[in-house]
Amino acid sequence: MHTIEILEKFKSKDRIALSKIITRVENNIDTEIILSEIYKNIGNAHRIGITGPPGAGKSTLINKLSVYFKKQGYNPSVVAVDPSSPFSGGALLGDRFRMMEATNEGIYIRSMASRGSLGGIAKTTISVVDVCDAFGFDPIFIETVGVGQIELDIIKASDTVIVILVPESGDGIQAMKAGLIEIADIFVINKSDREGADRFYMDLKTAVDMGFSTKDKNWKPIIIKSSAVRGIGIDEIYSAILKHKEYIRANRRLEKMRKERYYEEFKELAKEKLWETFVSKVDVNKILENGFISKKSPYELLREVLDNENHIRK
Amino acid sequence: MHTIEILEKFKSKDRIALSKIITRVENNIDTEIILSEIYKNIGNAHRIGITGPPGAGKSTLINKLSVYFKKQGYNPSVVAVDPSSPFSGGALLGDRFRMMEATNEGIYIRSMASRGSLGGIAKTTISVVDVCDAFGFDPIFIETVGVGQIELDIIKASDTVIVILVPESGDGIQAMKAGLIEIADIFVINKSDREGADRFYMDLKTAVDMGFSTKDKNWKPIIIKSSAVRGIGIDEIYSAILKHKEYIRANRRLEKMRKERYYEEFKELAKEKLWETFVSKVDVNKILENGFISKKSPYELLREVLDNENHIRK
Repeated sequence: MHTIEILEKFKSKDRIALSKIITRVENNIDTEIILSEIYKNIGNAHRIGITGPPGAGKSTLINKLSVYFKKQGYNPSVVAVDPSSPFSGGALLGDRFRMMEATNEGIYIRSMASRGSLGGIAKTTISVVDVCDAFGFDPIFIETVGVGQIELDIIKASDTVIVILVPESGDGIQAMKAGLIEIADIFVINKSDREGADRFYMDLKTAVDMGFSTKDKNWKPIIIKSSAVRGIGIDEIYSAILKHKEYIRANRRLEKMRKERYYEEFKELAKEKLWETFVSKVDVNKILENGFISKKSPYELLREVLDNENHIRK
Repeated sequence: MHTIEILEKFKSKDRIALSKIITRVENNIDTEIILSEIYKNIGNAHRIGITGPPGAGKSTLINKLSVYFKKQGYNPSVVAVDPSSPFSGGALLGDRFRMMEATNEGIYIRSMASRGSLGGIAKTTISVVDVCDAFGFDPIFIETVGVGQIELDIIKASDTVIVILVPESGDGIQAMKAGLIEIADIFVINKSDREGADRFYMDLKTAVDMGFSTKDKNWKPIIIKSSAVRGIGIDEIYSAILKHKEYIRANRRLEKMRKERYYEEFKELAKEKLWETFVSKVDVNKILENGFISKKSPYELLREVLDNENHIRK
């Protein structure tokens, strides 16, 4: 079916059309057409990024939380991402089994396939979230594992960031993979019936009180203990999200964040496009091979290439 | 003094000229000229990136380690970086007091001032290391705090990466800021006379054995317990560095890494330059402001601008 036709169905809230549109965006087919078409309808969804180490219970939490939102009259959806890190090679996607309840409630859940190219995953994910936003979902939960640069880029595109951790004995090592403390608006200590939860809570509280988490000086991250499997703490997390949502809307922080993202997105697109155009005009691989062998500084090499190109143009 | 004159003195191993050259690179004065001039002489230094949470003892370790290298006949230098993270605002540079011994041994130590622009710090630091390399130092220790993207970019430009950690009770929280396990070639557990060191060692060993650290499948990170203040473990770290150095040279991994970095550096420079040229031709701020308000997708906006520009050119 032609993209334009699918877009028509998309507008009439057809979920099959939605899935098809997302697949096209994932495979970079007609992305420009799609985004140009839907872009006028985005901006209504509250975007909630949820991240944490593998095994922290992200899927289970999102399962419960999305159902909770639904019961309050919201129309949530979930976008789950598990990019292969250039180092770790990536783990399997969280068992969709853990999202059974949400699925049964008719909540739209989309797992993003892992892609090869760096940067590409973040960009694609944000586009997919844009699509879900334009479709009319609100809020949209975005699930990522750990925090590499890709996940950070995705998380930065969220309005509220939830970092979920567990008070495991081996958590030191898992948390090491994280770098998470600076990005959270809300911390969830999941599996808080386990040993060490109170200690971990105090450590985290100390860190927050000491100002380790300085994403926004006027917002002190809320810390919540939960047991997602048992449904404990879900109402508190729900309230914390609404509180943060209200906060960023009240002081126009949201608009500022979104404007900055728009600028960044444009700049990255433009740089990519300009580089592509450049590559199409010169034999970059050959130039680089020669430059490397003859030990030319990249600056010198670039200047030569650009001078040469201008010369040809004249 | 003119840059060309300073470069002459630089070539005759004048350290004042070296410092002046670095200052120019830091302030982006004649960087292109400088790098083009020195680039032919780089590639001899082994670059050792050392990172870890604040208080882990990086400065103390580098102090001891650089002196140790010096006593083995090497000519080491140190480049210390403490970029302001966009979130944390950055801490003070490690007390240079801790590097007293190295200073007294005549080891060249350079602290990089924190700069505003993202990406810029990493690029500048790598250029400064290039300068030190061309000057004739070997090895070069590069010290960074924690791991944000900037530090990661710097660390990626190292040949051997040492991650230094401490078995503190509160280390869970500090390590959380890290994301370090995937980047290490060598782990140092410093202050290993403290409680919990053996436990921490076992946890780390388990993580390494389980393959958490998969930067290079053929290199299993070496874990060393040390007490930098007391000079314990320095000889082991020295040996581990040489072992890793030998390994990456033997299987041509070093050349591959350096080629990749060269390609990346060129690409980033080119994209930046192309973007600058673009910005000089169109009123980007106005375009973006209008695009944001009228809810145009960044793709659409970019296409319009590029079409328009081509139109004008014709």
